[in-house]
Amino acid sequence: MTHDFDTAIALTPTGPDRFTGATHPAYANMVGPYGGITSATLLNAVMQHPDRLGSPVALTVNYAGPIADGAFEIHARATRTNRSTQHWTLELSQAGVVATTATAVFAHRRSTWSSVEARPHSGLPGPDALAAADISARFPWTRRYDVRFLEGHFPEPLDGIEQADSGTRVWLRDDPPRPLDYPALVSLCDAFFPRVYTRRRVFSPAGTVTLSAYFHADEAMLAAQGDRHVLGVARGLSYRNGFHDQTAEIWGQDGQLLATTQQLVYFRD
Amino acid sequence: MTHDFDTAIALTPTGPDRFTGATHPAYANMVGPYGGITSATLLNAVMQHPDRLGSPVALTVNYAGPIADGAFEIHARATRTNRSTQHWTLELSQAGVVATTATAVFAHRRSTWSSVEARPHSGLPGPDALAAADISARFPWTRRYDVRFLEGHFPEPLDGIEQADSGTRVWLRDDPPRPLDYPALVSLCDAFFPRVYTRRRVFSPAGTVTLSAYFHADEAMLAAQGDRHVLGVARGLSYRNGFHDQTAEIWGQDGQLLATTQQLVYFRD
Repeated sequence: MTHDFDTAIALTPTGPDRFTGATHPAYANMVGPYGGITSATLLNAVMQHPDRLGSPVALTVNYAGPIADGAFEIHARATRTNRSTQHWTLELSQAGVVATTATAVFAHRRSTWSSVEARPHSGLPGPDALAAADISARFPWTRRYDVRFLEGHFPEPLDGIEQADSGTRVWLRDDPPRPLDYPALVSLCDAFFPRVYTRRRVFSPAGTVTLSAYFHADEAMLAAQGDRHVLGVARGLSYRNGFHDQTAEIWGQDGQLLATTQQLVYFRD
Repeated sequence: MTHDFDTAIALTPTGPDRFTGATHPAYANMVGPYGGITSATLLNAVMQHPDRLGSPVALTVNYAGPIADGAFEIHARATRTNRSTQHWTLELSQAGVVATTATAVFAHRRSTWSSVEARPHSGLPGPDALAAADISARFPWTRRYDVRFLEGHFPEPLDGIEQADSGTRVWLRDDPPRPLDYPALVSLCDAFFPRVYTRRRVFSPAGTVTLSAYFHADEAMLAAQGDRHVLGVARGLSYRNGFHDQTAEIWGQDGQLLATTQQLVYFRD
């Protein structure tokens, strides 16, 4: 049986550098698709492009405008191919109107000195020790993730009491489970609610403007992670005049740092 | 007298969406120009584009290949213009070969609830209490910054003794001083040496692959900062198989968080 995630990111080549796809109701957001599934679909365009070199190391996605439910086109162009790295520029459009732009960097990884400098999160209760949060009443895409909060719960009650800190630590997994790959990893990078909700405990219009993800995991690390929960750690640094940043780390269960990500979020009072 | 920075980022319109510029010897790196001056030049293309809306909130620059000393062309295209935000896609090329790609988000800022959540750095010695580091023997561009280290000095001695932490705190200013604007701010975002040097105290080939900067400062904050030193805070989180990330905060002297940035760096042993 095909996982909804794979159906949602599926693309059909229609010509050189061109693909078509369609939004999937399982990953719908309040308006249009969940941003994570859009970034996964854009990454997938490069993954299945015949000219692709190596595997992803970085992706930036700019959410330029709303995506209507239904079909879309993706233009994916290798702007420069070097010996061990390759740069891509992408556009997702509907009826000729650009809705999303992106750039991606792919590379052949070579073995070098390696080190995780970020503080690992040890001694935490595992996902099996925690109950899955019930966020099913929100938007369809939230039901596609099994979410188990360690701290910084999804901001309920929405009591409007301002918090000092937006930090969240949470176990996350595709629901139903699915072995981790690069598209699923970048989708997880966008699975943290806007930090302004966590800070203010108020629901207001907010959405990602631009997101960058850096993939530290190679294929062997993804295979070792399999379909187990990842640990997500997110926080915001600055909220000012309609925009705030937020950063996140995605950790594997073996203490591996799989990805780091930052995004800029648009918000209204 | 024109500051070398302004000469270095100067562009001449040559047609719709097209500009020409040239590398400047004052901002030369080991090979080609300093990455920060390239990102400032790309941002400047949008700043002086007749169709520009508002001011920059985000910029991502991908260093796809080397830039040779001499002239270059920039293609800057508004991919989507909304009521209060505008998205741009840019390419810098030489003789038809793409060397750098970028995307930018501009916006009209509106007054909203605002908060700096990042830990401010209080009680530090000011720049006047510290000596300027002598890094003039490195590359030309380093002479264009007045650099005063609080911690995480530029990695000398290069004794190969591995450090546990890549954290740096440093006062930075254009040299000679120049009032801060958005191009200067994004150039400062790239002024931190690759964290792998700080960690390993070994000099090896390394360079930025992709950089994203989020601009939290509006024009009034930039004007208040003037030409005083900014406080830069940088560190890396993961180093693995030829790539590492690093993040940085740029603080104003009034305790304002002016910008946050992350980049992915390519390195060899």
